[in-house]
Amino acid sequence: MVNKILVVHGPNLNLLGSREENVYGKVSLEDINNKLVALAKELKVDLETYQSNVEGEIVNTIQAAKGKIGAIVINPGGYTHYSVAIRDAIAAVKIPTVEVHLSNIYAREEFRQKSVIAPVVAGQIAGFGANSYLLGLRAAIELLKK
Amino acid sequence: MVNKILVVHGPNLNLLGSREENVYGKVSLEDINNKLVALAKELKVDLETYQSNVEGEIVNTIQAAKGKIGAIVINPGGYTHYSVAIRDAIAAVKIPTVEVHLSNIYAREEFRQKSVIAPVVAGQIAGFGANSYLLGLRAAIELLKK
Amino acid sequence: MVNKILVVHGPNLNLLGSREENVYGKVSLEDINNKLVALAKELKVDLETYQSNVEGEIVNTIQAAKGKIGAIVINPGGYTHYSVAIRDAIAAVKIPTVEVHLSNIYAREEFRQKSVIAPVVAGQIAGFGANSYLLGLRAAIELLKK
Amino acid sequence: MVNKILVVHGPNLNLLGSREENVYGKVSLEDINNKLVALAKELKVDLETYQSNVEGEIVNTIQAAKGKIGAIVINPGGYTHYSVAIRDAIAAVKIPTVEVHLSNIYAREEFRQKSVIAPVVAGQIAGFGANSYLLGLRAAIELLKK
Amino acid sequence: MVNKILVVHGPNLNLLGSREENVYGKVSLEDINNKLVALAKELKVDLETYQSNVEGEIVNTIQAAKGKIGAIVINPGGYTHYSVAIRDAIAAVKIPTVEVHLSNIYAREEFRQKSVIAPVVAGQIAGFGANSYLLGLRAAIELLKK
Amino acid sequence: MVNKILVVHGPNLNLLGSREENVYGKVSLEDINNKLVALAKELKVDLETYQSNVEGEIVNTIQAAKGKIGAIVINPGGYTHYSVAIRDAIAAVKIPTVEVHLSNIYAREEFRQKSVIAPVVAGQIAGFGANSYLLGLRAAIELLKK
Amino acid sequence: MVNKILVVHGPNLNLLGSREENVYGKVSLEDINNKLVALAKELKVDLETYQSNVEGEIVNTIQAAKGKIGAIVINPGGYTHYSVAIRDAIAAVKIPTVEVHLSNIYAREEFRQKSVIAPVVAGQIAGFGANSYLLGLRAAIELLKK
Amino acid sequence: MVNKILVVHGPNLNLLGSREENVYGKVSLEDINNKLVALAKELKVDLETYQSNVEGEIVNTIQAAKGKIGAIVINPGGYTHYSVAIRDAIAAVKIPTVEVHLSNIYAREEFRQKSVIAPVVAGQIAGFGANSYLLGLRAAIELLKK
Amino acid sequence: MVNKILVVHGPNLNLLGSREENVYGKVSLEDINNKLVALAKELKVDLETYQSNVEGEIVNTIQAAKGKIGAIVINPGGYTHYSVAIRDAIAAVKIPTVEVHLSNIYAREEFRQKSVIAPVVAGQIAGFGANSYLLGLRAAIELLKK
Amino acid sequence: MVNKILVVHGPNLNLLGSREENVYGKVSLEDINNKLVALAKELKVDLETYQSNVEGEIVNTIQAAKGKIGAIVINPGGYTHYSVAIRDAIAAVKIPTVEVHLSNIYAREEFRQKSVIAPVVAGQIAGFGANSYLLGLRAAIELLKK
Amino acid sequence: MVNKILVVHGPNLNLLGSREENVYGKVSLEDINNKLVALAKELKVDLETYQSNVEGEIVNTIQAAKGKIGAIVINPGGYTHYSVAIRDAIAAVKIPTVEVHLSNIYAREEFRQKSVIAPVVAGQIAGFGANSYLLGLRAAIELLKK
Amino acid sequence: MVNKILVVHGPNLNLLGSREENVYGKVSLEDINNKLVALAKELKVDLETYQSNVEGEIVNTIQAAKGKIGAIVINPGGYTHYSVAIRDAIAAVKIPTVEVHLSNIYAREEFRQKSVIAPVVAGQIAGFGANSYLLGLRAAIELLKK
Repeated sequence: MVNKILVVHGPNLNLLGSREENVYGKVSLEDINNKLVALAKELKVDLETYQSNVEGEIVNTIQAAKGKIGAIVINPGGYTHYSVAIRDAIAAVKIPTVEVHLSNIYAREEFRQKSVIAPVVAGQIAGFGANSYLLGLRAAIELLKK
Repeated sequence: MVNKILVVHGPNLNLLGSREENVYGKVSLEDINNKLVALAKELKVDLETYQSNVEGEIVNTIQAAKGKIGAIVINPGGYTHYSVAIRDAIAAVKIPTVEVHLSNIYAREEFRQKSVIAPVVAGQIAGFGANSYLLGLRAAIELLKK
Repeated sequence: MVNKILVVHGPNLNLLGSREENVYGKVSLEDINNKLVALAKELKVDLETYQSNVEGEIVNTIQAAKGKIGAIVINPGGYTHYSVAIRDAIAAVKIPTVEVHLSNIYAREEFRQKSVIAPVVAGQIAGFGANSYLLGLRAAIELLKK
Repeated sequence: MVNKILVVHGPNLNLLGSREENVYGKVSLEDINNKLVALAKELKVDLETYQSNVEGEIVNTIQAAKGKIGAIVINPGGYTHYSVAIRDAIAAVKIPTVEVHLSNIYAREEFRQKSVIAPVVAGQIAGFGANSYLLGLRAAIELLKK
Repeated sequence: MVNKILVVHGPNLNLLGSREENVYGKVSLEDINNKLVALAKELKVDLETYQSNVEGEIVNTIQAAKGKIGAIVINPGGYTHYSVAIRDAIAAVKIPTVEVHLSNIYAREEFRQKSVIAPVVAGQIAGFGANSYLLGLRAAIELLKK
Repeated sequence: MVNKILVVHGPNLNLLGSREENVYGKVSLEDINNKLVALAKELKVDLETYQSNVEGEIVNTIQAAKGKIGAIVINPGGYTHYSVAIRDAIAAVKIPTVEVHLSNIYAREEFRQKSVIAPVVAGQIAGFGANSYLLGLRAAIELLKK
Repeated sequence: MVNKILVVHGPNLNLLGSREENVYGKVSLEDINNKLVALAKELKVDLETYQSNVEGEIVNTIQAAKGKIGAIVINPGGYTHYSVAIRDAIAAVKIPTVEVHLSNIYAREEFRQKSVIAPVVAGQIAGFGANSYLLGLRAAIELLKK
Repeated sequence: MVNKILVVHGPNLNLLGSREENVYGKVSLEDINNKLVALAKELKVDLETYQSNVEGEIVNTIQAAKGKIGAIVINPGGYTHYSVAIRDAIAAVKIPTVEVHLSNIYAREEFRQKSVIAPVVAGQIAGFGANSYLLGLRAAIELLKK
Repeated sequence: MVNKILVVHGPNLNLLGSREENVYGKVSLEDINNKLVALAKELKVDLETYQSNVEGEIVNTIQAAKGKIGAIVINPGGYTHYSVAIRDAIAAVKIPTVEVHLSNIYAREEFRQKSVIAPVVAGQIAGFGANSYLLGLRAAIELLKK
Repeated sequence: MVNKILVVHGPNLNLLGSREENVYGKVSLEDINNKLVALAKELKVDLETYQSNVEGEIVNTIQAAKGKIGAIVINPGGYTHYSVAIRDAIAAVKIPTVEVHLSNIYAREEFRQKSVIAPVVAGQIAGFGANSYLLGLRAAIELLKK
Repeated sequence: MVNKILVVHGPNLNLLGSREENVYGKVSLEDINNKLVALAKELKVDLETYQSNVEGEIVNTIQAAKGKIGAIVINPGGYTHYSVAIRDAIAAVKIPTVEVHLSNIYAREEFRQKSVIAPVVAGQIAGFGANSYLLGLRAAIELLKK
Repeated sequence: MVNKILVVHGPNLNLLGSREENVYGKVSLEDINNKLVALAKELKVDLETYQSNVEGEIVNTIQAAKGKIGAIVINPGGYTHYSVAIRDAIAAVKIPTVEVHLSNIYAREEFRQKSVIAPVVAGQIAGFGANSYLLGLRAAIELLKK
């Protein structure tokens, strides 16, 4: 078992804090990453974070995690709703994965209520803002232990 | 602000441990409640748990929580997929609520992938077994603080 | 012909006045019942009111009305959209029934625009707040006369 | 506030009494208008009635009501199910409007169960025969008072 | 193996004989229960019957059957079409179950043609009036033997 | 029985001959009316033809036919696919009606394959160009005889 | 050009006269064939009739018509709604074809309102009982002339 | 009343015992027929069995039953889901019919959950393996008696 | 080529400026027509404007344009979403046509996102308020030149 | 393992070469069979070909292949889209099967894009004209080897 | 306010002129860019153009525009129909955006008639070939002014 | 004609051999490429292979093939189900293309049964594991010859 967790941030999450504050809140991606690092330290796991707007690069990153990462926390952003490529990458590497969302996607537009990623992850956490990531990290650590 | 959290278990959750272990795992409802009590103690909030198989009684319980409970964690069980009555109760009392599920409902039958409750809760946590409840309790406590 | 009308209030209507005022207004259920009693008196019919959050108890109440009640006014609340049990009870007792709604359900969420009760009632009145009940009582009295 | 109500009868309602009696009853449009006039007198509002089979003329009439009419009662007949033009006219003039139907449209063919008008009116009354209009007039008068 | 069969009658079935005779026939629930008792005696199995209009109480009864009942015959009435709670209860207790209907639900309204219960029962018998129960009892006894 | 047939041409049929010849052929509306007159003469019935682009005027014309016309042949043109107003007019006057189309509407765009008029007419003839009208006239005469 | 017309009767049409008279009338298939023969004689074309309940034999018969038959009149009966095999046979032999139906299929069950045959025929005639065939024969003769 | 029952086995049922045992069990068609013969003898009715893979021949057989057979038990096999031809044959001969299935079709693929035959039969029995036929025979005999 | 452009305003556009300002802005129809006249003058084409609330009159106007108008700019208003009659008129006269909308119809209600007119026009411009018309005029002039 | 392959041609394929050449090309069925025989000889397997327009006879032929044929290549023609009977036959005999189509069914009408056969075959080859069969034969031989 | 406009060309637009000329015309992307530059000069705004086939790079470019660009004109090409990532980028940067298409997407395949981008842009222009871009530039400049 | 074939492997195919062996088998991408090279040599065509996880790079590669490649074999992987960008690239370069899939996509999840690529390729081969590629190469060579 690898004691390291990869957090993947999908498209447009690099704009957090400056983007639709009513939906996504005021914290920046850097703030979230800092909180994650602090919690990882407290819970004694290694942590790596990654952000990209390019679907295929997210696929590359997930593939590269094989053998080096024990669990993944991913917010697939807009790709949540159609990226079979990311879904297949997660299924292929067989690393236990937690899907997180800042907003409650089930209280938004119809198309945001369908995640093509969800059927291949261990579980999903949505709607708690930055705290979704922290809860996701805790969930991932539990998956690591199994 | 009321420093007390209500955990509501919907229909058939009283059978946990003896029910479809491949889907729901081996822990009993009592085990889960014990874990919740322990975590609540650690995190310094009061906790109350409730289970019922009767939709209307769950509605009654949610209504009664008004003014006495600061946040709700609910696993609506089978009612997740059609109980507008429970949904309306949650919306009516305006207590911040976390929806939890033991299994990853998005990896199951089509009809289980639609929650009529989700649009009125703060957020949803699904797929982590008993840990969904513990993460839900943490999420609820954060909601309490706001 | 029985000169008595039963008014049935479905789930969460007991919260009226304290619940989502922008949708349901400020009058309480007691206010509505008082207005109904006054109008019934003026129009010279007996009136009975009933509220429950439990679907099956509403079924029980409708069944018990047989032979004792001349017409029913019902606001099925959240059960409007799925309770075949209540629908079947109304169809079974053959008491002429008026379906009422406080809000204009056709200007709300998609799922609220479908009533499974409507096909078995005499008619439907929606959107006039507490006045929906008063109009419903007038409509029920006309049905009584036939 | 203008103390006058306009009742608009849509297509084929001029045939009432001679048309499908099992669905629409035996009263003629003239009978209904007479009943409306009598009730308006009793309730002390002015009343004007209008019937047309031409969609665009109904639009013209609604537009012309602006500033001269306090509330509208409309039975859009067959146009209920597709006339976005009439819907837009009602929304544009912002006169509170009550939609009425003689028959219970929710107990009829699938296509009759969808009203494109309903989302822009204050409320809807359906299924009480000629009485739908009288209840509609009462509802409109209440809207006038607000 | 427990040599006892539980027959569960869902909502409104207590009205049999006095309810929509053209659909459900003239026999009362008591008549059906008597016929069932007689056949059970003939076929040498114990029999228990239960009726409730409350979904959650039906769930309670099915849960309580665990270990005491060898097979269930259930007519879920109106709950047939939406009660995931009853479905989950049947799946959870793992008692072989036969779903019966008095009427041929496939010759009725669209919504009655979908049973959410059917996927978890052993089999379904519909359309033979009171005889559906008797055939269901025979089917249940065969399941008992396996 | 009235020995007279009304032929109603809907919107844009006045452009025949100059309109999309690949779909509708080269004959003008006048040509078709002349052929109809000749055949009516041969078959010894009176004939009246009418064309309008205005939905409501077609409704007016059908209403006016009551008592004066024994059967109707109608090509509702573009109104075929949504005019509940024309449908209701035909159903209201109870004059036996034949629906005709120049083109085979079932070999064209999806939306042209649904006629809201068809359920209330005696029968439908489509795809034979101007001959659809002549066959329609023969069909109408047979309906007259019944 | 071959001056001969083939009339194909699909499944269960051999039962005409003894089958659901309220829908299909009292004339037998022999009556219809006799009427067709008489009209063909009057209009000076050769006529051949064929009936089968077997889809593949109808396909065989259509295939065999190539080069020997100038136009086809077909009532595909129950196969109307799913037989791509018959549709493909008609399209393959390129003989102009008229689809006929005794009843107005657009006033019946939803599934009867969709013909998979219609897109490949010249036109369709439905709803005139035995007269549908006679009108179909006239239509086919016009197609022959082109 | 004719005291004889026809059992019709549809396509691929001749392979029973050697076909997908996990779904259809180990008994052969001959075994089932033998059991049926034995039960028929016990219950004192004549019995005839028939199997064909050809849709049209099944139609022929149902048509031929008219006047010679008092009730039909049919397992339409794969034709269950699309054969309007068989459906129409059953409706045309008006012999009371019981539809049976070895497997619980409601627990299988989506397309197997829709029977086009079901709306015209008296009732349906599904899911009890060979016992479905025996229960079907009992049901058919009851229909005979009416 | 005719150097003249017809601008057609559909139902309720005569209310512009006084109608739902948040959606349609403050400019009146007269303002828009004045701007169009000015731009036409600048760009050296003749211009004619027309407004009607009656679908059939819009059809009449489009038909009358044949031979007199080089290109059409049309805002079909509420008729956008169902008027096959207007669609067919545009297709029949074969005058190049530009469809314009004041608001971004793709950011509004579901039903406003479907234009039955769009498939037969050259192109569509939506969302720029009064400027949609001016851009539409420029587009129409380019079509004129081809 | 049986070293013999059966090629089944469905309805209307006997017309190849003379049928819709733009879709199906000019080669006749005999040409294709000759090519298949030559390739089979080259690749050293026995080959048998069969064509029928009758669904049930194709079922019979597939059933008869059991034990005598090592792999099947089938072009189900029009039956592709609805024949559950053929699907069930293939699933029942458990002979590895290759589905082939001359045309690219995914570039044709909507209904041709759904194969009910595909889920039970090993694989599908479509769009290469006669070459689809040759590739299918190669694929079948590989399946034979496994 | 930044007086600069960014024109973004999506996937495959670099092939313009050599790609499906019947749909997209003969002008190359360079031609379009030259025309845009000329018009920008005339209208006195700065202009920048960008083309990429990579979804994520388009997201990057839109993000980078924040603060440097006053308005965007985008032709999202194939990404129009599914790229929630590009949609979210546009919504996040809050730069007023005009969506343009060379072809009339509403006259093409069903899937091309749905733009996931459209709900977040100011407006859409489609169907005028290269002129769509020029009109889009004019529209963007008007948005700049607000 | 260019005697060279390009084989494009879409996302996650680089993981073959180590990825879900039950679905995709044990051969690695290198194995497949080696087999392709060997077969190409035997069949005397040049071969180039390419793999990328990035949608836009696959578009770039297809665009670059123009004039240098005679036919393409593509396994679009997860992009099969939504990449209009790849579809448009294939349609734009007009190089004959064969779509291949390792698994039988029609026996998998619903969403995998729809290929947006299929309508623009010459044909599709699915379900034969690595052999799908070899058959695809043979198919591509035949397309080259035309």
